[in-house]
Amino acid sequence: MMGTVDKALSLMRFFSPQIPELGLSELARKSGFDKATTLRCLNALERNGFVEQDVLSRKYRVGLSPFHLAQIREQSFPVESIIAEHLDALATRVGETAHGTLMAGRDPVTVAISSPNRALFVHVSPSTALPWHATASGIAIAAHLPDEAQKELLDRLEFAPYTPKTPSNKEDMRTEWNVCRESGIACVQSTFEDDVVGTAAPIFGQTGHAVGSVAIASVALRMTPDLQTQIASELRRVSQIITNKIGGVLPVNL
Amino acid sequence: MMGTVDKALSLMRFFSPQIPELGLSELARKSGFDKATTLRCLNALERNGFVEQDVLSRKYRVGLSPFHLAQIREQSFPVESIIAEHLDALATRVGETAHGTLMAGRDPVTVAISSPNRALFVHVSPSTALPWHATASGIAIAAHLPDEAQKELLDRLEFAPYTPKTPSNKEDMRTEWNVCRESGIACVQSTFEDDVVGTAAPIFGQTGHAVGSVAIASVALRMTPDLQTQIASELRRVSQIITNKIGGVLPVNL
Repeated sequence: MMGTVDKALSLMRFFSPQIPELGLSELARKSGFDKATTLRCLNALERNGFVEQDVLSRKYRVGLSPFHLAQIREQSFPVESIIAEHLDALATRVGETAHGTLMAGRDPVTVAISSPNRALFVHVSPSTALPWHATASGIAIAAHLPDEAQKELLDRLEFAPYTPKTPSNKEDMRTEWNVCRESGIACVQSTFEDDVVGTAAPIFGQTGHAVGSVAIASVALRMTPDLQTQIASELRRVSQIITNKIGGVLPVNL
Repeated sequence: MMGTVDKALSLMRFFSPQIPELGLSELARKSGFDKATTLRCLNALERNGFVEQDVLSRKYRVGLSPFHLAQIREQSFPVESIIAEHLDALATRVGETAHGTLMAGRDPVTVAISSPNRALFVHVSPSTALPWHATASGIAIAAHLPDEAQKELLDRLEFAPYTPKTPSNKEDMRTEWNVCRESGIACVQSTFEDDVVGTAAPIFGQTGHAVGSVAIASVALRMTPDLQTQIASELRRVSQIITNKIGGVLPVNL
């Protein structure tokens, strides 16, 4: 029975800033559901304002209910604002792009970005999915998830090769997670995009597991050991402040 | 089968700025579903990031998926920004509170508010549900919905009496809608809150039916016939601009 709700909600994941509108056939193909099931899901989502259908193209886009719900969330539990308010200072101090990530369901999404005031910096797009295996944010969060969530994650990871340096198998992944758990910091170079160093620290929720991360995306050609040390130290500090503010709990080993 | 998706999505409606967290029993009671069904719905919503459960209180709140989806919507189809950008000038010109409303699923929600720069004005809260029968926004939209949507609406309206002047039955409602269709403007006094005059004009979508409204909430004691005429005229103008900008179509009689 509940499979149906999961099916309907899972359709929402196919919308992105790059693909804001999708037709019935495309959604059926992407989801692997038959057309009749996909249409029934879309009709229920539409009745409740989660999607709208364009009259002319017949394509679907995100509706207004999420906007309304996001306002309610923001007023009652403004985690994304708490993260955002620390990013400007962070970007200024290290001179690189700072961004914050939170778990939305089972995947991390970027909730806030602050770029440094200089000509060359790494562009991070809002609401782009951050791949678990290829980004420092993904690794920092995954390394601090409950065991069963890590297992589930490893089973569904497809290890898309964004660059020649992207981790490509479960063993690599486990290694990255272990390193991150030991140091409290995830650091990767050119695993998602060439010439970019990603550094991230986890934000913890009430259970002592990660609910998000703060990260710095740096231009690799100007990275130095000193700057890397400073970035790690700033991220540790800010992630602990945010963890405290949202009522989170650091795990015992950190 | 699809009843289940509707049930799950309908649970999201019970969250509001006033009631941001709800327990399982409360949600079961409000929805009329049994506890087992309610819990299965909540689990599916939680797996997909639409709700989160507080570890200590065990209550549910809105999760982060709506925030993420609202960002995607805003980037691809920024209707709420289009409305918002017209409200400041509107509030300044008439000296009263301007607000914009859009349909999210089957109910209207406030998406933008601009208050005039003066000491006394009507406070409109974001993401508060606007009752269909008691507000100018509700009437302006409902008057321009398809026939079947109007019938469905009349059947579910409970005509909560906010003030002694709130319309109280289907016949009153039909009368208000007819007046609004003839004039293009809905105007009510003290039907939702005492001492407040609400005036609203519909925003039309691609089908020529209303998808939202722009409205002015005025302090009744300073309303004059001239000001009322100015407000109606400004609202007609702004609602037509917004309708054009979002690719909407005015119905033939307007």
